[in-house]
Amino acid sequence: MIGMAVVGYGYWGPNLVRNIADTPGVQLLTVCDLQPERLASVKGRYPAVTVTSDYEELLRDPRIHAIAIATPVSSHFRLAMSALMAGKHVFVEKPITPSAEEAQRLVDEAERRGLVLAVDHTFVHTSAVRKMRELVGSELGDIYYYDSVRVNLGLFQHDVSVIWDLAVHDLSIIDYVIPEKPVAVSATGVSHVAGEPENIAYLNLFFESNLIAHIHVNWLAPVKLRRTLIGGSRQMIVYDDLEPSEKIKVYDKGITLTGGQPLQGGKDVYQMMVGYRTGDMRAPHLDVVEALGSEIREFLHCIEHNGTPVADGQAGLRVVSVLEAATRSLAQRGRVMELQPARRVA
Amino acid sequence: MIGMAVVGYGYWGPNLVRNIADTPGVQLLTVCDLQPERLASVKGRYPAVTVTSDYEELLRDPRIHAIAIATPVSSHFRLAMSALMAGKHVFVEKPITPSAEEAQRLVDEAERRGLVLAVDHTFVHTSAVRKMRELVGSELGDIYYYDSVRVNLGLFQHDVSVIWDLAVHDLSIIDYVIPEKPVAVSATGVSHVAGEPENIAYLNLFFESNLIAHIHVNWLAPVKLRRTLIGGSRQMIVYDDLEPSEKIKVYDKGITLTGGQPLQGGKDVYQMMVGYRTGDMRAPHLDVVEALGSEIREFLHCIEHNGTPVADGQAGLRVVSVLEAATRSLAQRGRVMELQPARRVA
Amino acid sequence: MIGMAVVGYGYWGPNLVRNIADTPGVQLLTVCDLQPERLASVKGRYPAVTVTSDYEELLRDPRIHAIAIATPVSSHFRLAMSALMAGKHVFVEKPITPSAEEAQRLVDEAERRGLVLAVDHTFVHTSAVRKMRELVGSELGDIYYYDSVRVNLGLFQHDVSVIWDLAVHDLSIIDYVIPEKPVAVSATGVSHVAGEPENIAYLNLFFESNLIAHIHVNWLAPVKLRRTLIGGSRQMIVYDDLEPSEKIKVYDKGITLTGGQPLQGGKDVYQMMVGYRTGDMRAPHLDVVEALGSEIREFLHCIEHNGTPVADGQAGLRVVSVLEAATRSLAQRGRVMELQPARRVA
Amino acid sequence: MIGMAVVGYGYWGPNLVRNIADTPGVQLLTVCDLQPERLASVKGRYPAVTVTSDYEELLRDPRIHAIAIATPVSSHFRLAMSALMAGKHVFVEKPITPSAEEAQRLVDEAERRGLVLAVDHTFVHTSAVRKMRELVGSELGDIYYYDSVRVNLGLFQHDVSVIWDLAVHDLSIIDYVIPEKPVAVSATGVSHVAGEPENIAYLNLFFESNLIAHIHVNWLAPVKLRRTLIGGSRQMIVYDDLEPSEKIKVYDKGITLTGGQPLQGGKDVYQMMVGYRTGDMRAPHLDVVEALGSEIREFLHCIEHNGTPVADGQAGLRVVSVLEAATRSLAQRGRVMELQPARRVA
Repeated sequence: MIGMAVVGYGYWGPNLVRNIADTPGVQLLTVCDLQPERLASVKGRYPAVTVTSDYEELLRDPRIHAIAIATPVSSHFRLAMSALMAGKHVFVEKPITPSAEEAQRLVDEAERRGLVLAVDHTFVHTSAVRKMRELVGSELGDIYYYDSVRVNLGLFQHDVSVIWDLAVHDLSIIDYVIPEKPVAVSATGVSHVAGEPENIAYLNLFFESNLIAHIHVNWLAPVKLRRTLIGGSRQMIVYDDLEPSEKIKVYDKGITLTGGQPLQGGKDVYQMMVGYRTGDMRAPHLDVVEALGSEIREFLHCIEHNGTPVADGQAGLRVVSVLEAATRSLAQRGRVMELQPARRVA
Repeated sequence: MIGMAVVGYGYWGPNLVRNIADTPGVQLLTVCDLQPERLASVKGRYPAVTVTSDYEELLRDPRIHAIAIATPVSSHFRLAMSALMAGKHVFVEKPITPSAEEAQRLVDEAERRGLVLAVDHTFVHTSAVRKMRELVGSELGDIYYYDSVRVNLGLFQHDVSVIWDLAVHDLSIIDYVIPEKPVAVSATGVSHVAGEPENIAYLNLFFESNLIAHIHVNWLAPVKLRRTLIGGSRQMIVYDDLEPSEKIKVYDKGITLTGGQPLQGGKDVYQMMVGYRTGDMRAPHLDVVEALGSEIREFLHCIEHNGTPVADGQAGLRVVSVLEAATRSLAQRGRVMELQPARRVA
Repeated sequence: MIGMAVVGYGYWGPNLVRNIADTPGVQLLTVCDLQPERLASVKGRYPAVTVTSDYEELLRDPRIHAIAIATPVSSHFRLAMSALMAGKHVFVEKPITPSAEEAQRLVDEAERRGLVLAVDHTFVHTSAVRKMRELVGSELGDIYYYDSVRVNLGLFQHDVSVIWDLAVHDLSIIDYVIPEKPVAVSATGVSHVAGEPENIAYLNLFFESNLIAHIHVNWLAPVKLRRTLIGGSRQMIVYDDLEPSEKIKVYDKGITLTGGQPLQGGKDVYQMMVGYRTGDMRAPHLDVVEALGSEIREFLHCIEHNGTPVADGQAGLRVVSVLEAATRSLAQRGRVMELQPARRVA
Repeated sequence: MIGMAVVGYGYWGPNLVRNIADTPGVQLLTVCDLQPERLASVKGRYPAVTVTSDYEELLRDPRIHAIAIATPVSSHFRLAMSALMAGKHVFVEKPITPSAEEAQRLVDEAERRGLVLAVDHTFVHTSAVRKMRELVGSELGDIYYYDSVRVNLGLFQHDVSVIWDLAVHDLSIIDYVIPEKPVAVSATGVSHVAGEPENIAYLNLFFESNLIAHIHVNWLAPVKLRRTLIGGSRQMIVYDDLEPSEKIKVYDKGITLTGGQPLQGGKDVYQMMVGYRTGDMRAPHLDVVEALGSEIREFLHCIEHNGTPVADGQAGLRVVSVLEAATRSLAQRGRVMELQPARRVA
């Protein structure tokens, strides 16, 4: 039986607590938060759980093998690092840290100590995203583009721009679904509230192949949209996360290239060479599962079997590296920022 | 009675011919094309119309007051310039020319001679786009962003990239709907057919205010999308051109800013200051009109009353200037290209 | 402070318990159920609440002023009647009883004792249905028709047909939204599981005016649909309960009748007389409220101020009367069944 | 080369004329109409075609082998019968005649003379409806229900009710798609314009098996809907004719029945026995064809090879028989009308 603690009982913490409490093989021992009324709320619902406002208590408790961190991003590094140094496995909310440098240090520390470091990239545990990964690796053929729109009204944040709040989801999905890693990023965006970070932004991810990825995020849209297109050489996907059941549609569509070089003489000649192929569309059945529960189970499994989570510290680091570079690009009207290949610990 | 001729009876020419033939106050005299079978087709449908493969005949005919040009873009400049020099008014397909320099010369020539030079920016004559212009100038308040998605499968062209084929529509709509003119543009995109122009592209338009415009065009999408979001400080628009009747939806939504400076202490404090306002949505009734017919009538009216079409040569020039700069940016992974303010003829 | 108890902690009971526990001015004292594990679940979540499997305890407890009944329909009459006879106010799940005769007896008993008898017609407490009632009484003009489609896959029941499970919602909405009461009903339907009640059915409601109402319910549909059309002489409504935010759309559409008698000579003459009017569509903003919470508050308010709930016993009786007559009609391939006007207690 | 004539150049006639003119193997010789301006319009477009207002000319002309009839329904019988008696093959608009008795006489006459009698049930020549027939005969399993909604605003007619105008489409589709023939029909409906036929109606078709079909037609709806559900024991279809490309969606969904007899004890026990099966959805690719052109080609093919059209006179007769019975039922608030099995000519 693995013992766990949760630090942070604000917006997302209660979901973590509920899922841990409902998962067999793990015992939720302690919840830590600075606000007394939140601790009282925990106590009311989970009388057997210890509550505390002192994070050090968690670190000292030998029955606690793992800590889940659901505090504001600015505190992730400090809390996660001290947990690792105390020998605890760590499950941390996304984004893993506010900087790639900090993420790298957490990755290194976890590797050195042989501890599991998991990042809560929730979407990669959904049936829809898992299905996309499966299709990308098989039926779609070569991947041509990935285009995501993630817009709605609110919630404006004043410490980070919309890319840290919304694009982080797309970046973690791309990291999981697309085997190739981006080599550069650019971003443009605007703030419509004086003195505040960008509330609308567009990101381009560049790859060594002719794959292109693009992300549109917006806190000031009149309608909520969550729609991704993935174009492959053989098939294409439309993923609409707001569809109640048919979230993934796979189109047997594309172009076929025939003939040799285009002759002079214009459009007509060329159009003989690019043909359009249109077949069936299908929406594969997706199981209904709560992603967070499956994440917790995977985390426990990794602890017990010395495994690596699909969203490990390296994944968290890769996503933060892109966010950081995109933020720099945003300040320079879309100047292209090269991305470093992930460093390997020797 | 104004006498007109049409040159080019390929893809779009038949629509022009039909609309001119159906418009009172104008007489369709001659249709010119290089392919004999097309001329035979004209003769079959419009026995009273003269057909010719010799463009010079049109220029010499004193009964012809105006010429509509529906040939490939590469020939627009030569045909339009010789028509203007022969004293004919000109109605030319979009884009007006392949380069801003040529467009400028046509504009200058038309102005010097007092002739009408109209560009077929069809969308600016639709009820939906006219309604958006009306709303942008009134109920929407300050304009925050303009975001358009125009994607489908095909038709690949081999002489121009997707931005000359699809983004030209968005640029002409923006030119008409948004009073402010862009000061810079950037574009990224990829070709997925070796040796061919980009078939997917993303454009950013920058303005002096904090307005941002973005256009996504794609010839390789599994679904057809034609959806524009316009965000204003008071109201917002969703324009879906594929909706059969409710193309324009106006949302009484937005943010309200209250309170003074954000205090230190994070998210909670700030969220008191950005409020979210949600009111009714309405879809204004739009008249069903064929845009091209209304364009022809406007063109005739301008000839008779010495007027200026809403899509005149200057509009055509502005759109081509952006396309040209975007093409240069495309070759440099989205480097920002400054746009020259439109030159005024002294 | 009003004291309440809940009997039945199966499918719907937990929602009732949660809403009562969250409502100020009422104290949830006791939950009664026959299954010990359900009572344990209540105890886990609400340690202060008494649990029992003996309904008589509730009746004897003088601190309990009102009882909410969320048990299977077949037990509603017995539990509600004994509650009323013990002087308790009653809040009962829909349908109120399996027969009009029993409903009438509950209505009579409650009236005799001056107790509040409320039926959980949940939809009449939603923002969407309240908005429809408001529109029906004003902008729509004369009401021409009411057409509802309520279909999905499952859940098959074996004691009642689909009309008792799904059409009951539409009947309670019609009862609330449409001032005129039906005078007759017919129903057709089929069972596709041998020996089981109908899983697909169509109901017609007839009125003295030329209003017609129609309900399509189906447990065996491949997609979930919840869509109602209401036609009025001046405006019309489309109500789609599955829309996340624009559930109600009001169309300024209709016909205009002009001219005198139709002359002989056919269609052309007549079409001058029926004109079609098409104006704006609007989706009024709807507040997001949990209907059940607002029902509980209304129930308490009625107890305290001797008021009548919008869905009182009479409403429950009217709905059950239609269900009963429809069930008889179903067995006779749609024979029209006249409905008795609601009896008034002298 | 088959010679054809068309009588009636009003609403639908021009489509017929255009399709006949475009079809190889047939020569359009004559168009007949009573209105001179319509004949002038034909002459302008098709200078080689003879025009006349005298139907007898068509009957006398030996070069004319077949006549297409696109006049008002009330004249169909007279025109078709005289054409058949003159030895001409007949292609007649739907509905074939205003009464089953007249339809039967046409069927008999055509059979006696060995002439082709085709009815323009356009939908049975669309890719979508052909695909449905194919699926109904194979993957769907036993057919449980057919439910169609066909509503819009207008066009009101004053000589026939909405069922003759709109339900005729559904009846012809059902006749083609569903192998089993209905044994009885009932219909309810209302007129909202004094003295005029019903503008909203609901039809039930009863079959010997436990199949049920239902049709909702309405001239006074705020939105246009064209949606059919077909439930089968193995798969189910949603057919939305307004979808631009995915008109047919096939759901691998249904119920599975397991276990023996329902035990006493209610819902829980039974629910173990009805299981719900949910698999993929797919939208089969449909070819884009103009139905009317393919009808004309089939008609010619039947003439040349002594074949029977899919929508022959018998199909026209079956549809009119249902319309006639439904009209009688409409006048009696949905009284069930038995249908005669189609008479066979000895």
